[in-house]
Amino acid sequence: MTFNNAVPTKFPDLKPRVPGGEALLAAERANTTFDINALSKFMYTKPWLDSMNKILQVIENELAFDKSKRYFQSRQEKITTGLQKDRRLVELVREHRWTEEEAQIANFLYDQSTPFSLHYGMFIPTLKNQTTDEQKRLFLEPALRHEIIGCYAQTELGHGSNVQGLETTATYIPETNEFEIHSPTLTSCKWWIGGLGKAANHAIVMARLITDGKDLGPHPFCVQIRSLEDHRPLPGITVGDIGPKFGFNATDNGFIMFDHYRVPHISFLAKYSQVKPGSGTYTKPPNAKLSYGTMVFVRANIVMGVRYALARATTVAIRYSTIRQQFVDATSPHKWNNQVVETPVLNYTMQQYRLLPIVAAAYACFFTGREMLRLYDLNQTAMQQGNYSLLADLHASSSGLKSLTTTMAIESLEDCRRACGGHGYSLFSGLGLFYQDYLPNVTWEGDNYILTQQTARYLLKTFRHVVAGKAEPSEYNHTITYLTSYLQNPKAKCPATSAEDFLNPETILSAFGFRAAYGIAQVAEQIDRHGRSWNSMLVEISRISKAHCQFVLVRNFLVTLQKDPSLILPENKPMLQVLKTLAYLFALNTIEKELSEFLLSGYLSSEQSVQLKQQVIALLEQVRPNAVGLVDAFALPDYYLNSALGRYDGKVYESMTKMAEDEPLNHTLVVDGYQENIKPFVHKQYKKKTNSRDSVSRL
Amino acid sequence: MTFNNAVPTKFPDLKPRVPGGEALLAAERANTTFDINALSKFMYTKPWLDSMNKILQVIENELAFDKSKRYFQSRQEKITTGLQKDRRLVELVREHRWTEEEAQIANFLYDQSTPFSLHYGMFIPTLKNQTTDEQKRLFLEPALRHEIIGCYAQTELGHGSNVQGLETTATYIPETNEFEIHSPTLTSCKWWIGGLGKAANHAIVMARLITDGKDLGPHPFCVQIRSLEDHRPLPGITVGDIGPKFGFNATDNGFIMFDHYRVPHISFLAKYSQVKPGSGTYTKPPNAKLSYGTMVFVRANIVMGVRYALARATTVAIRYSTIRQQFVDATSPHKWNNQVVETPVLNYTMQQYRLLPIVAAAYACFFTGREMLRLYDLNQTAMQQGNYSLLADLHASSSGLKSLTTTMAIESLEDCRRACGGHGYSLFSGLGLFYQDYLPNVTWEGDNYILTQQTARYLLKTFRHVVAGKAEPSEYNHTITYLTSYLQNPKAKCPATSAEDFLNPETILSAFGFRAAYGIAQVAEQIDRHGRSWNSMLVEISRISKAHCQFVLVRNFLVTLQKDPSLILPENKPMLQVLKTLAYLFALNTIEKELSEFLLSGYLSSEQSVQLKQQVIALLEQVRPNAVGLVDAFALPDYYLNSALGRYDGKVYESMTKMAEDEPLNHTLVVDGYQENIKPFVHKQYKKKTNSRDSVSRL
Repeated sequence: MTFNNAVPTKFPDLKPRVPGGEALLAAERANTTFDINALSKFMYTKPWLDSMNKILQVIENELAFDKSKRYFQSRQEKITTGLQKDRRLVELVREHRWTEEEAQIANFLYDQSTPFSLHYGMFIPTLKNQTTDEQKRLFLEPALRHEIIGCYAQTELGHGSNVQGLETTATYIPETNEFEIHSPTLTSCKWWIGGLGKAANHAIVMARLITDGKDLGPHPFCVQIRSLEDHRPLPGITVGDIGPKFGFNATDNGFIMFDHYRVPHISFLAKYSQVKPGSGTYTKPPNAKLSYGTMVFVRANIVMGVRYALARATTVAIRYSTIRQQFVDATSPHKWNNQVVETPVLNYTMQQYRLLPIVAAAYACFFTGREMLRLYDLNQTAMQQGNYSLLADLHASSSGLKSLTTTMAIESLEDCRRACGGHGYSLFSGLGLFYQDYLPNVTWEGDNYILTQQTARYLLKTFRHVVAGKAEPSEYNHTITYLTSYLQNPKAKCPATSAEDFLNPETILSAFGFRAAYGIAQVAEQIDRHGRSWNSMLVEISRISKAHCQFVLVRNFLVTLQKDPSLILPENKPMLQVLKTLAYLFALNTIEKELSEFLLSGYLSSEQSVQLKQQVIALLEQVRPNAVGLVDAFALPDYYLNSALGRYDGKVYESMTKMAEDEPLNHTLVVDGYQENIKPFVHKQYKKKTNSRDSVSRL
Repeated sequence: MTFNNAVPTKFPDLKPRVPGGEALLAAERANTTFDINALSKFMYTKPWLDSMNKILQVIENELAFDKSKRYFQSRQEKITTGLQKDRRLVELVREHRWTEEEAQIANFLYDQSTPFSLHYGMFIPTLKNQTTDEQKRLFLEPALRHEIIGCYAQTELGHGSNVQGLETTATYIPETNEFEIHSPTLTSCKWWIGGLGKAANHAIVMARLITDGKDLGPHPFCVQIRSLEDHRPLPGITVGDIGPKFGFNATDNGFIMFDHYRVPHISFLAKYSQVKPGSGTYTKPPNAKLSYGTMVFVRANIVMGVRYALARATTVAIRYSTIRQQFVDATSPHKWNNQVVETPVLNYTMQQYRLLPIVAAAYACFFTGREMLRLYDLNQTAMQQGNYSLLADLHASSSGLKSLTTTMAIESLEDCRRACGGHGYSLFSGLGLFYQDYLPNVTWEGDNYILTQQTARYLLKTFRHVVAGKAEPSEYNHTITYLTSYLQNPKAKCPATSAEDFLNPETILSAFGFRAAYGIAQVAEQIDRHGRSWNSMLVEISRISKAHCQFVLVRNFLVTLQKDPSLILPENKPMLQVLKTLAYLFALNTIEKELSEFLLSGYLSSEQSVQLKQQVIALLEQVRPNAVGLVDAFALPDYYLNSALGRYDGKVYESMTKMAEDEPLNHTLVVDGYQENIKPFVHKQYKKKTNSRDSVSRL
């Protein structure tokens, strides 16, 4: 054993105590009852996994994609390395002829939003959807070649969710056939705009169109903001970075203000509405319903993103919880080579209760995300044929599901981090920065509280239709189905008489449907009969949205397990068995969390609740042996996880110490500031008392 | 209006739209029904407020205490400025002859843990409590003069909560009368030790004492680790910083490993146990119960800290929620100078529901923290007289209260941040970094899940005593009181028949007591009659701890309002009225959150639950006009809050933009990396097509 005090700091070459992480994880994997690879393929498909592995091999060897310094970087270093990665990705896409999906996989694995992210995520899609052919040539084509870099400037310092309240104006000037973009107040400053702070030279600006003396509300303009010669802001523009954030610090979220800034007529994105040159006459856009389809798509992808978030957090927490050992469980001591050792924390019921339902939720979000994408396609086809019958339910569910699942995700992520004990607080856990970056999901693309109002409005409307006999159950609208069944028997009771009776998809779905319908009926009564205002009912309104969306999540999980053709194959039987257990765990744990609503609806009794709680504990015990297998099946590579605690090989402590060696503070043995701030105190007495020096210094 | 594109970035001199934050806050304050200053004095006392203001005036003008760069600093800058502040504080304490409490106020206001924090927080207190007189002269006195800087090294890479499992050894060597401190494995590396990474030259090291061939478990040693001459690690020691964390990055949490490191006999802290020089014979410590008193003190202070956390988060969120306006509430449009304006978000019931119960919880934690400190004093006096009768209940409650209130605090903090919408995500909100730094409270000083087991053990033991008729109700033990009353009538029902009936302290306390007792009885039955293992009951075990502690919080709040002499004064009547409303809100909202347990216990019916929920909404409406007054009463200065959203003067948007001007990225107009990563794309086409240049560049 050698200890090395030289620069840089080196740990001695020692092993962790026995049993180490590698052996513990191997033992877990040996206990798995199903084929882990088959489950991965079922979720991702083999071609996707192959693509991921191919891309992983490339970027793991690219300096611009290196993650080893990520946890040590200052904000400015993050921005600079973000730009390097953005440039290199453009080159790699060309070199390897990656498809758009493959470029997305590279970004997924790199796992950090960068200055160009919004160029791809908002600028290009907006140009694709809202431009004329001429505008496509002028803006979209150079944007695709990165000759212009853009962003999407909507939110203002004083206006977030209420887009109609935006203050920035764009006044048509007939004399010069231009628009004058202007920021009349400090609150009208565009704020939070990703990519605007330092990188973009163009922006889609949402501004109130004023023409012919009329204020026509917010419309999009494509505007150059920085010089293409030297990147300096153009005259009339104040632009910069909005400063540090809780996360997302590799992105240059920016602000911009316009001082009577003139842009040509062509800047007004004119696919859906037009301003006639000269007269300035305005032409209204056609039916806005098509844009709801896009929102469904964005939200379905957010739900799929939730799956990744939960998968990632549980991969780290589950693996580490089988390695981390704490205390000896007196009633059931853990043995290793016939010796009692401390118990891996995942053997404690509380740890299982904290983590295993989150594993189940990850799978639940996968099945619902997949179903939303399927319905999105179905609905797009239907709408193109003029059939809008699917849209309302799909849009309403997608609002509430975005709200519910992202809130679930961020809470679960933090639960996983905390379940890692002290080390969860180190950035090396891979969970801290991830939490910080994931957090905006609860606020953006519709604030999670405001979204529930959209869902609730639809639910109340549908309820009134069903009451009035104006709505028929259909195979695509399960809202109508559960509302109808509730109205037929509003005093129904759950038929379960034992803990085992809860392991039944019908019993579970009836309970979720009844509880949602009951809540909707109560709100409808308060508003329609007792004249309560919408504002005074907002708390209950958010509850019915949640109730509905929990029904949807549980239903999609259970129904897929009954109907998915590949799950019926005989070789997949063990996998199906495990997924069923997970589905029950997800459903029953959700009932337990929302128990008061199930009780208040009168559907569930106190006795049944006790049985249900016992069943949850029993299910935890059943899932436990497959815990590592279930997170392995998420197939998240170490490069993506970037976590000392969640590594596939279990080398937790070797990795923690290796990463600590890279801490810049450890590159010198004596800290900056020692001379000024520590030495004067220490030496004051020390120098004086030369006699006692030896005793103190050799203590 | 002038726009300035010169370096550095400057915002134009524009005002926010009307009504601005100043006017809105002034209107709120004019509506307050009680004397804000009187409430501040009631909570803090006038002398404390005077001290705070005196110290505030000093440090606001000290460069070393400047916070204007805090949100922009890299980890290394944080450590260096932290050291500067540590040194300057030592000087200021001398210059101004500040007391220890005043130095603590300075640290409270500075609000960032720094390299010396654990020197004061753990090193000195341990030396005070665990040393002989000789050791006091050798270690404590120089430590008080900062001639040595220390830390407290207990946690290891592989061991957190289970102190008995620590691996580091300290073997007595009779030949030289020394101890040999050694790290046998990688997992035995000391980890997480605040102040150790870069600053400390001494450490209290917890190591397994091995003497006379016996392993006597962990004992404390005071050990020099770095040279007093040049601060380099001494031979045999590997020491450094553990790397970046989710928060707390101005503290140098460190690691240390020992390679057969010899220390003299005097290093063994010998107040409570001794190792005889030469023979190495070990003498056991006396009764360990005294140390439980210290834990109560630490935890009472954590509960008082929760009050600050909640006070701070709500001060920011409440003030900003009266300034931030969003949508026009159709049923009750907000007017300003007779014009309809967007509605301040705090007028929406949902926002009130999210925030006002947290204001109430801040006051609840204040009353419970104060009561814990009173009981701590009472108990210390009693123990010195050999009376240990108060200790068990106090210690048990303090474990569970630490767990419950810190969990509440961190959730509430995040609720407040989210309630600020998008701007809550900016570090300028003052809530992000605060959340990051506060978070370890749920893990340290006893992991919040593990602590609930301590509380539950006591509750079960007490239950068994009450059943056996071996426990008498006393004025100091309310646990026995509620258990006794439950056992007298386990089928009791809540007497409330209307929403108003819940505004009754007795009704509320009976409900909380009954629900706690019911849960305890269920767990006792499962374990004692049905032989369920402790491990399988951990979920319910954590629930009964929570139930008990919610009883304590509610009881202390209600009882103080009935008994505190200064609240009975006639001039304080309006204040008392507001506090009563808050107490009811806290209690009823807590019941609502835990409704399923109250329902399952059989004490509360569905009909009563509906009435209770209505009462909660009614209470929100009553608290609303005093919301700003109630957070103003927390008397947290702007320097402490360091928040653009939460400023006393309401200049939210002026402050956001001012802070953005200071963002280092805005000190240059063209971003680092432009030449390499953006220009080549832009200029590639741009240079080629000189013809089209004008059209693109002047777009």
